[in-house]
Amino acid sequence: MIREKRLRAGKDSMTVTERIQALREEMKKAGVDIYIVPSADFHQSEYAGAYFAARKYITGFTGSAGTAIIMADEAYLWTDGRYFIQAAQQLEGSPITLMKMGEPDVPTIEEFLKDHIKEGQTLGFDGRVVSKGQGTKYAEITQKNGAVISYREDLIDKIWTDRPALSTNPAFHLDIRYTGETAKSKLARIREEMQKEGADLHVLTTLDDICWTFNFRGNDVRYSPLVYSYCLIAMDHVDLYMDEAKADAQMLEDFAENHVTIHPYNDIYQDIQKLTSDQTLLLDPERLNYALYNLIPAEVTRVEKRNPEILMKAIKNETELQNIRQAELKDSVAHVRFMKWLKEHVGQEKITEISASDKLDEFRAEMGNFLRPSFGPISSYGEHGAIVHYSSTPETDVELKPGALYLTDTGAGFYEGSTDITRTYALGEVPQIMKDHFTLVAISNLSLANVKFKEGACGQNLDYAARRPFWERGLDYNHGTGHGVGYLLNIHEGPAGFRWQIREGAYEPLQEGMIITDEPGIYIEGSHGIRLENEVLVRKGERNAYGQFMYLETLTYIPFDLDAINPDMMSEQEKDWLNAYHHEVYEKLCPMLREDEREWLKKYTRAI
Amino acid sequence: MIREKRLRAGKDSMTVTERIQALREEMKKAGVDIYIVPSADFHQSEYAGAYFAARKYITGFTGSAGTAIIMADEAYLWTDGRYFIQAAQQLEGSPITLMKMGEPDVPTIEEFLKDHIKEGQTLGFDGRVVSKGQGTKYAEITQKNGAVISYREDLIDKIWTDRPALSTNPAFHLDIRYTGETAKSKLARIREEMQKEGADLHVLTTLDDICWTFNFRGNDVRYSPLVYSYCLIAMDHVDLYMDEAKADAQMLEDFAENHVTIHPYNDIYQDIQKLTSDQTLLLDPERLNYALYNLIPAEVTRVEKRNPEILMKAIKNETELQNIRQAELKDSVAHVRFMKWLKEHVGQEKITEISASDKLDEFRAEMGNFLRPSFGPISSYGEHGAIVHYSSTPETDVELKPGALYLTDTGAGFYEGSTDITRTYALGEVPQIMKDHFTLVAISNLSLANVKFKEGACGQNLDYAARRPFWERGLDYNHGTGHGVGYLLNIHEGPAGFRWQIREGAYEPLQEGMIITDEPGIYIEGSHGIRLENEVLVRKGERNAYGQFMYLETLTYIPFDLDAINPDMMSEQEKDWLNAYHHEVYEKLCPMLREDEREWLKKYTRAI
Repeated sequence: MIREKRLRAGKDSMTVTERIQALREEMKKAGVDIYIVPSADFHQSEYAGAYFAARKYITGFTGSAGTAIIMADEAYLWTDGRYFIQAAQQLEGSPITLMKMGEPDVPTIEEFLKDHIKEGQTLGFDGRVVSKGQGTKYAEITQKNGAVISYREDLIDKIWTDRPALSTNPAFHLDIRYTGETAKSKLARIREEMQKEGADLHVLTTLDDICWTFNFRGNDVRYSPLVYSYCLIAMDHVDLYMDEAKADAQMLEDFAENHVTIHPYNDIYQDIQKLTSDQTLLLDPERLNYALYNLIPAEVTRVEKRNPEILMKAIKNETELQNIRQAELKDSVAHVRFMKWLKEHVGQEKITEISASDKLDEFRAEMGNFLRPSFGPISSYGEHGAIVHYSSTPETDVELKPGALYLTDTGAGFYEGSTDITRTYALGEVPQIMKDHFTLVAISNLSLANVKFKEGACGQNLDYAARRPFWERGLDYNHGTGHGVGYLLNIHEGPAGFRWQIREGAYEPLQEGMIITDEPGIYIEGSHGIRLENEVLVRKGERNAYGQFMYLETLTYIPFDLDAINPDMMSEQEKDWLNAYHHEVYEKLCPMLREDEREWLKKYTRAI
Repeated sequence: MIREKRLRAGKDSMTVTERIQALREEMKKAGVDIYIVPSADFHQSEYAGAYFAARKYITGFTGSAGTAIIMADEAYLWTDGRYFIQAAQQLEGSPITLMKMGEPDVPTIEEFLKDHIKEGQTLGFDGRVVSKGQGTKYAEITQKNGAVISYREDLIDKIWTDRPALSTNPAFHLDIRYTGETAKSKLARIREEMQKEGADLHVLTTLDDICWTFNFRGNDVRYSPLVYSYCLIAMDHVDLYMDEAKADAQMLEDFAENHVTIHPYNDIYQDIQKLTSDQTLLLDPERLNYALYNLIPAEVTRVEKRNPEILMKAIKNETELQNIRQAELKDSVAHVRFMKWLKEHVGQEKITEISASDKLDEFRAEMGNFLRPSFGPISSYGEHGAIVHYSSTPETDVELKPGALYLTDTGAGFYEGSTDITRTYALGEVPQIMKDHFTLVAISNLSLANVKFKEGACGQNLDYAARRPFWERGLDYNHGTGHGVGYLLNIHEGPAGFRWQIREGAYEPLQEGMIITDEPGIYIEGSHGIRLENEVLVRKGERNAYGQFMYLETLTYIPFDLDAINPDMMSEQEKDWLNAYHHEVYEKLCPMLREDEREWLKKYTRAI
């Protein structure tokens, strides 16, 4: 699944105009001249809970990405190209001016602030929903203009009377048969890294890193089974900030064993100010919010490094790998059943984008140990497939009919791990151009899946394996080829991935145990979209005089629809790749299928 | 040609033991306890003149890479794996201990210094032959140990009585028909960059950047037609530090026009100390020596950035490109004549590595406008081919006989530009494994040459095109796939190249006008070595809805020896690539060849 930010918000009785008026009164009381409202939670999560939909509340714009700036007489909303039409509609009648990001003559937020913050003024924002990096830029601009910032107050909270509560959903301990490593062992490894850096304290605020470290999961964030929390890891104890009522008995037992003390969620903002000059704090400046970062007393020694949990978590252990292989097999069976059902029923009964997606989840649930979808489903028919981040709603939902392509990009959270799988299916007979494009995407996917490489290579070295078939035809897709996948955590998990752009500090050697998606695609506006996504596991291969070689083990076993393959476009090697993959699909799934399903699968995994 | 550092030194009547004794006396006089002697000139050049062979003088070790450390009672030489045997032989009987870099239990120079510098001691080195980065590390270690450094004296100079003089070879103005841009225009572009950075002064010490900026060349460095010099570029004038006697009339005329004042070579060390607090100096901390960097007064504002000349110089202008295409064609004709001569005469008359290399230069000289070889020739027969940096000497020179491979990696400096070309030829019938390896290298070369890519891609994204055929067979070559090539400057020119390792700040998007080599290889110790090297030019291709596409134009037109090609190993696409290349070789060279040569070439460029 391709990365996208989303936000959901609650309802309210006031109009947007009234809300802005109320905010302006609070701004006056607080002495704030310009107030910034971004779309984020306190942890820079990809998905945020309803409590955090402040920007949606104050603007009425429901898109996933946008930042509002409210001033005494003016109000603005910045959003990107995906949302220009939607935002224009939703802002109609409000006092908010739409700022189309990237358009000529539209200033960036920073350029706007440079021009609009006047000497002696105060720029306000809730420092908990602004990253350290972004907040620092705001502070620099403000200072240059002879103004000051105020980041300690959430002014939206003062006017949002029916704000949804912070989630109180229960959390649960994730058993060692799923995690494969105790919190005790993880803490020991983290403390070893702290020691290496000369730190005796480590602040961690990214939800997936906290859940991973302490082996618990919850239900506070839509799709990601995370728990709102912060923590401070000392060498002999841990202060964990979360709603204690959420914890189950096993969690409490585990916490006691590991000297973990629970404090109220927001108490960290008080406690961080009590750190003393004899402490050395390991922190990740890319992953702290502005408020927390700035509340650390100046006399505390800081070691600013990437959180050590990031790499540890990305390298799955043997238990996790055995589970994930199982989860992928289960999801593959569900997909094959869905593919068979779809091929046999399309045109015979009414199937829509939404009902198809529900059907797939039914097949998944039948496999057992199924918790929830691992992200919002992309279920798109025909021209909807060309909208990369399409989300079917009752208003856009259409019926699936023969003669076009259907794309499904969905994932399951099983106890055995999270999946993220995309398939595109030909419904009935489809035009030749769609088959050619489908074949191109299949070639690209297989080309990457079959790379063999030297230890030390990064995704940026290998992305070309997937791009070459596109680039040599003057084609491309405007997204990364793959991302890391969390184990019942975030579906998009760093630090490794497949993409070609090289950015400072953002290239990571692929290491054994990392799980990454392989998902090239093609998108023809107004016509069709195709994407084929498998998950692959980085493995060590032979070690010889030339060094340690690595390869990718494919974990997902679902046919690439042969009804949409044009064999004439494929070289012998490419056909071999496809046939070998299909052979493996058949062999792996057979024991889990009924006789009629096996017969059907045999046809759809035949050698070409 | 693959990068390697070399050094040449003069002769002396003293033994190494006597030299070390003499140095120790100078150290005592100067109050220096530990003295470091590296292998470098004042400009961090790849090749250095005989004057700079101080490390060779004090140790007797003639290898290209090594650092000596002399103390009151001990003396050490660090060198790398290529030179362990040679260094052990050459150090025999001297009081110097060999430190084999990379071997277990052998400390690095820095680890050694940490352990050996005692409180109150003085660590000495000539700060002009140590880079700013290296010198800073030495200084940090010294300070931590409570010692001091002394970098202002060249103690070797005090004892080296018959030290070779600094070169006094004449320099010459390079005509606009070769450079395509006046110094005036280049200076205007440089000053624009200075202005962008807020600088009013720019120090430049890399020889190729200086020669490029002022359109002159010389003969101070073996192989590279450079002139020992420094310069300070101000907004309205330039101070150039070089031996004025070297300049020809046109250079002087051009200098006058551009307000360039010549000062004695070493005066920059005085003048840099006179900079004042109202000046802002643009400098490249990676490309200054330690002495010069540290003599800049503390009150001068520094803008530390990569020298702007590096990228300007790498992007060749249309005049340079037309010339280089011509130079490559001339060298291709010389190579084809050589190849024909070699195939027809091997086994018939005595041909050796050295005589073959001389013969190739003869064919080159016949093409006209030939200045000199552009680097030390690699001419290797049979198992010598497996030694990547092999340099044939009268002691190692062997006769070329049928039944094995011959590798030639050489280059010409024509007025129309520098070439760097490698070919491997089958002499008579060679074993199947050599043909298979040759075919693999040809596939790799052609795979890279035929890449099509999006603007913004770096060599690290594309290197995989060359590596894939190797890596998928569990093979590799332990060097980069290609380097930039200078125009009568350094044969290894930054900043772009083809390699897979990504290092901080060392990845450069490929831009139209860059010339890079494409030179994969395979090396089987004790048996054979194969490398095929063409130069390629980065070009803009189609621009469409997916963006700006780029491709590589091959500049070198010499057959890949069909006597060593195994067509059964090649896919249809790979055969198409080879046939298309050979077709172009024939078409391009025909007009420049005699009738009998054409007939011969037809056979060696036939479609397979």
